[in-house]
Amino acid sequence: MHAVTDPHLPLAHSPVALAQALIRCPSVTPHEGGALATLAGILAEAGFTVERPVFSEPGTPDVENLYARIGEGPCLLFAGHTDVVPPGDGASWRHDPFGAEIEGGELFGRGAVDMKGGIACMLAATLAFLGQRGPDFGGAIAFLITGDEEGPAVNGTVKLLDWARARGERFAHCLLGEPTNPDALGEMIKIGRRGSLTANLTVHGVQGHVAYPHRAENPIPGLMRLAQGLLAAPLDAGTAHFDASNLEFTTMDVGNPSTNVIPAEARATFNIRFNDLWTPETLAAELERRLAAAAGNAVRYSLDVRPTNSVAFLTAPDAFVEQVSDAIAAETGRRPALSTTGGTSDARFIKDACPVIEFGLVGQTMHQVDERVAVADLDRLARIYGRVLDTYFPRSADAPYQA
Amino acid sequence: MHAVTDPHLPLAHSPVALAQALIRCPSVTPHEGGALATLAGILAEAGFTVERPVFSEPGTPDVENLYARIGEGPCLLFAGHTDVVPPGDGASWRHDPFGAEIEGGELFGRGAVDMKGGIACMLAATLAFLGQRGPDFGGAIAFLITGDEEGPAVNGTVKLLDWARARGERFAHCLLGEPTNPDALGEMIKIGRRGSLTANLTVHGVQGHVAYPHRAENPIPGLMRLAQGLLAAPLDAGTAHFDASNLEFTTMDVGNPSTNVIPAEARATFNIRFNDLWTPETLAAELERRLAAAAGNAVRYSLDVRPTNSVAFLTAPDAFVEQVSDAIAAETGRRPALSTTGGTSDARFIKDACPVIEFGLVGQTMHQVDERVAVADLDRLARIYGRVLDTYFPRSADAPYQA
Ligand SMILES: [Zn+2]
Ligand SMILES: [Zn+2]
Repeated sequence: MHAVTDPHLPLAHSPVALAQALIRCPSVTPHEGGALATLAGILAEAGFTVERPVFSEPGTPDVENLYARIGEGPCLLFAGHTDVVPPGDGASWRHDPFGAEIEGGELFGRGAVDMKGGIACMLAATLAFLGQRGPDFGGAIAFLITGDEEGPAVNGTVKLLDWARARGERFAHCLLGEPTNPDALGEMIKIGRRGSLTANLTVHGVQGHVAYPHRAENPIPGLMRLAQGLLAAPLDAGTAHFDASNLEFTTMDVGNPSTNVIPAEARATFNIRFNDLWTPETLAAELERRLAAAAGNAVRYSLDVRPTNSVAFLTAPDAFVEQVSDAIAAETGRRPALSTTGGTSDARFIKDACPVIEFGLVGQTMHQVDERVAVADLDRLARIYGRVLDTYFPRSADAPYQA
Repeated sequence: MHAVTDPHLPLAHSPVALAQALIRCPSVTPHEGGALATLAGILAEAGFTVERPVFSEPGTPDVENLYARIGEGPCLLFAGHTDVVPPGDGASWRHDPFGAEIEGGELFGRGAVDMKGGIACMLAATLAFLGQRGPDFGGAIAFLITGDEEGPAVNGTVKLLDWARARGERFAHCLLGEPTNPDALGEMIKIGRRGSLTANLTVHGVQGHVAYPHRAENPIPGLMRLAQGLLAAPLDAGTAHFDASNLEFTTMDVGNPSTNVIPAEARATFNIRFNDLWTPETLAAELERRLAAAAGNAVRYSLDVRPTNSVAFLTAPDAFVEQVSDAIAAETGRRPALSTTGGTSDARFIKDACPVIEFGLVGQTMHQVDERVAVADLDRLARIYGRVLDTYFPRSADAPYQA
């Protein structure tokens, strides 16, 4: 019988019960809502040293965070966030978004998959593992949990990592519990993420009356010309582990209410998700090159590339990735794809501290009304994390895992 | 010595004094401001039958108007408006915008050229003409003056013409006193106007996350494709009396603040100034044809052509145009161009009542801070209008003008 179904584990420490306890805390960013306190209490009782640093930054709300550690030696880090996006119109939910009700084998609530469910599974697996192996399991386990992932992400993982580094905390590997599976548990591990770059493009014209176009200079055709120049050729064809980089215009605005006036200016914003062929700097240079070529002497424009801390990164598939994949295959019968698709996550910060991979629940309902998770998936994900712990910290007979 | 400098004409009826009296009435649309009352008093004293109809329409302010007539027989109609656009920041004017001050030979004030100055010249010329010829001059003169040209233009010339038609008023020709000269008095008569058509174009996409573009459908490239299709080929090459029709995009808006979201919809508005090769109907059909060709099966869009009462029209150059041109040439030494350029004017309504041409002051400063007119131009324009009256209503020895 496997760890998390160990009859000695208190019922309150089952993954479902833990997920319910967390969902019932209304921890919409930047509010802690009792979620970190719940975690802190359980981790402390299990023997962890628990810290609750609060970070501040002018112009953003203070945010509470949690760091907990047990053991000595190579440290496996579980990372995640307890903050959730707002539920929207609660009335359109089938169940109270903070009620954590179960219906038809599914647990409903904001954060069910993103990612209170994932944290509950990490916690359940860890409690079971410690219950079996005791505190001297030949290594260390840490939890790095932020309350600022869905918000500005300024007072969260970035500062928590700095804070931990300053205290001398070191990590061998990190497992981030974001929902990584598109449709079914076991489909996908994220071993990297594309970078994200946003830029504002403004075309400058000369305002005038539509009846006298020769006295004006309409910026709208100029903006179309530049947009065409940016979109004409693909940025690349993708790499071994990454899709092709992609540019999307997200808005294009003039805001001129007068139908007899040629406007003075036209603005657009675009976002690029880019792979490991690019850095923000090389990408900005390519944008400038394409714009200059498209503009010629005919279009006056300015490009404002926003600073980004989101660069493309890849955790090269290694023995740890193999261990996690094996654990997934053993529980689900699926060999997960090693993917770099999707949006950004806090892995972009953690990758500077240690190799990081992401595996969690099925993301289908994340950020939506009726966010929910199959109870069976919670149990299976806890068992997968349990297998990872067992392999990562082999019993003394085996050789310890080396990063 | 010519009519308007007739020593028997009271000084208060000189074009400059009349223009000053009108400018001092703060008649910003829809306020009458005393301007029509001033006109009414002078016209009544000169023997005109004067009416002051007020027109209403739900959703727009009531507006006062003026209609005055003297004489029997072929009627020459002077048309214009006493309402003015707001002065904007009065402090940035060199002189009080309603002060009608004269400096360096220029009269300053809102409406100086558009078009209280023009009305003052019509009035001065008419008073001088009647002073010389008396009420039995072999024809009729009418003034059709609205207070709603710069505003919604709903309770102005359109209704005033309907009202006059219902009363049995008929006109042989109309002279509209809008500022028609780009740089110097005498350069340009308007013998027609282009039509104006405005349309809204919406491209429908599918909202989604920029990291998953294959699950979304970005409407912005679709909108660019359609815009390109509209702009690719000129609508026409112009006609004998008209410039080429011209399409200008006036705005393009998405209004998406999220840089990680592909928007659901993109909207644009464009305006076409079209010549006598088109009607609003044929133009709308051409737009639909171009859009369908550009869209293919790839772009979902909707086009909303706004109803327009502005169609292209031309007053075929005839003897009246010749008379006015001759009068201009005699006073200014310039043979005016017969033009159809520029924006729309109330001539688009008057053309349904009688042949209409436009000639007035120099428009350079219209609608601007420090709107002003050369005092010498007011005197010359009054003399031009006086010559037109003299020719239009020849003394009994000559044959009367036939339309
Ligand atoms: Zn998340
Ligand atoms: Zn005007």
